[in-house]
Amino acid sequence: MSDTVVVGLDVGGTSTRAAALTLTGERLGSGRGGGGNPTSHGAERAAAELLTALRGALAGVDPARVRAGTIGLAGAARLLADPAGRAAFDRAWAQAGLRCPYAVHGDALVAYASGTAAADGTVLIAGTGAIAAQVRDLRLDRVADGHGWLLGDAGSGFWLGREAVRHLLADLDRGSAPGPLGARVLTELLGSAEVAPRPRDTVDTLVQAVTRQAPVELARLAPLVVTAAVEGEPAAVDLIGQAAAHLAESASRIRPAGAAAPIVLGGGLLTGDTPLAAAVRAEARRRWPDAPVRTAGDGAAAAAWLAARDLPEVTDPAALHALLVPATA
Amino acid sequence: MSDTVVVGLDVGGTSTRAAALTLTGERLGSGRGGGGNPTSHGAERAAAELLTALRGALAGVDPARVRAGTIGLAGAARLLADPAGRAAFDRAWAQAGLRCPYAVHGDALVAYASGTAAADGTVLIAGTGAIAAQVRDLRLDRVADGHGWLLGDAGSGFWLGREAVRHLLADLDRGSAPGPLGARVLTELLGSAEVAPRPRDTVDTLVQAVTRQAPVELARLAPLVVTAAVEGEPAAVDLIGQAAAHLAESASRIRPAGAAAPIVLGGGLLTGDTPLAAAVRAEARRRWPDAPVRTAGDGAAAAAWLAARDLPEVTDPAALHALLVPATA
Repeated sequence: MSDTVVVGLDVGGTSTRAAALTLTGERLGSGRGGGGNPTSHGAERAAAELLTALRGALAGVDPARVRAGTIGLAGAARLLADPAGRAAFDRAWAQAGLRCPYAVHGDALVAYASGTAAADGTVLIAGTGAIAAQVRDLRLDRVADGHGWLLGDAGSGFWLGREAVRHLLADLDRGSAPGPLGARVLTELLGSAEVAPRPRDTVDTLVQAVTRQAPVELARLAPLVVTAAVEGEPAAVDLIGQAAAHLAESASRIRPAGAAAPIVLGGGLLTGDTPLAAAVRAEARRRWPDAPVRTAGDGAAAAAWLAARDLPEVTDPAALHALLVPATA
Repeated sequence: MSDTVVVGLDVGGTSTRAAALTLTGERLGSGRGGGGNPTSHGAERAAAELLTALRGALAGVDPARVRAGTIGLAGAARLLADPAGRAAFDRAWAQAGLRCPYAVHGDALVAYASGTAAADGTVLIAGTGAIAAQVRDLRLDRVADGHGWLLGDAGSGFWLGREAVRHLLADLDRGSAPGPLGARVLTELLGSAEVAPRPRDTVDTLVQAVTRQAPVELARLAPLVVTAAVEGEPAAVDLIGQAAAHLAESASRIRPAGAAAPIVLGGGLLTGDTPLAAAVRAEARRRWPDAPVRTAGDGAAAAAWLAARDLPEVTDPAALHALLVPATA
């Protein structure tokens, strides 16, 4: 048993991470590649980043010791439905010297497993977009939102950015001077916080500046809202509260009121000590007072744990989780 | 004075209307052309439709009798700033045989003047988009919203259509059967009200169907909301109420609380006996109990009145309005 190694990969839009772990929790190696989301980068490019990360994690490890592996990535279902994409991943796996099979799971499941060993629960993710998923027996079951910026992603980074601009436009319509958040948004989009003598001119320039970009670029303004909220600006605090309510509402579409199963928060806006994470925790306490709320952590280690669970020598998956996956809040 | 004729034009996105009127209110002619918004159709095409409508209105009228004219159109400021566009309009005016000068005003001002003769007031327009404007001395003064579908147009046809889809997606997320409005939206977008055995498949198909079109096409769903609201479906009635609140909020950005000056409702969603018009009237009564709320009417006649007002023989513009512009609610 001490010879057995498991490998986990967390393939994200900006980086790919790999971990090689023994079943006693010894981390034999870590690897890193560039962004490898097959939906946005193509399966070939994703497979190349996967191989880079795998080689990093397996440097100095005999690949014959690896008995199981899991890859977590966004658009997993689409990859599995595409024979060419699947073949590219198979090739990368073999090129790394691995002969064991591997499983592919959605990034939401891996985020969930990075926060808890419980077989059933909810994962709520807010980054550029937003999605909630119910996990049942460590499989993604029902999903809420994730509908994209035009129709959904309520409470996401896109949503926060768009609402920050809308708040500023309303101030300009009223002829009010923009507050600190509005000034930050003006500076980010127009290079200066100055308002034209006719505020409508600034309105027109702002609308043009935003519509020249892809809509999803509005997510780049989300950190301005977070910073302003940390500084206590009421407008930003209010937007954060609204975003948290939207995220909790999305989760409530698939999670029964009062459910006690854990909730894992993931995505750039909910991991770490952010005001949105705090506001979502408060919403969760209100709706699901008996549920532990965790933060997503090491996705590669969680993927390795998902791989290890099915090995015959693993009799206590929860104990193994404690060994393999670093604890988060 | 009885010899004097004034000409008015209302240039819209789907049609152009012209009216030739005497100062005693006799309608000498009416003309109609195709859509002529210079922003969307180009100034040359807009000028051609203008000429068609003008010729219709002036058939059998000696053009030398025409002493003044006004053209109301969306994007008036942009046309006036464009020498080539202005020249195309000048040419059409001359080709119709007119030698008097003409004024160009925004369509919002013409919509306002089609509902009231008061020099000061508010116009609130909801069609595909939504905008509110304060009128001061019969000029457009401050403007609220009109920010476009990505950042604004709250309460517009686009907004109603998008919210109808969002409501349906939330029902599908919950695993609830869509209500009558959701069924209408499904049928309109997917050709059938049937939901797949896995509702998430219907969610994905819906999101794809919407994102394949231009976002503004969502406005085509607004009539479904209006019809469902007329039939009393709670979800539709609720969306109509929210839209009305958004529209009133936009107006309140530029109109003082309790102001008594008239409010004119314009645009396809607010003219006629629609549930949104009724809901906006209720919002207006609550915020501005002393203000008369009127409905926009004959834009071409209102444009003719705006032209006539400045003639030296016109001493009572309000009395002239009563003669020239058909009364609305």
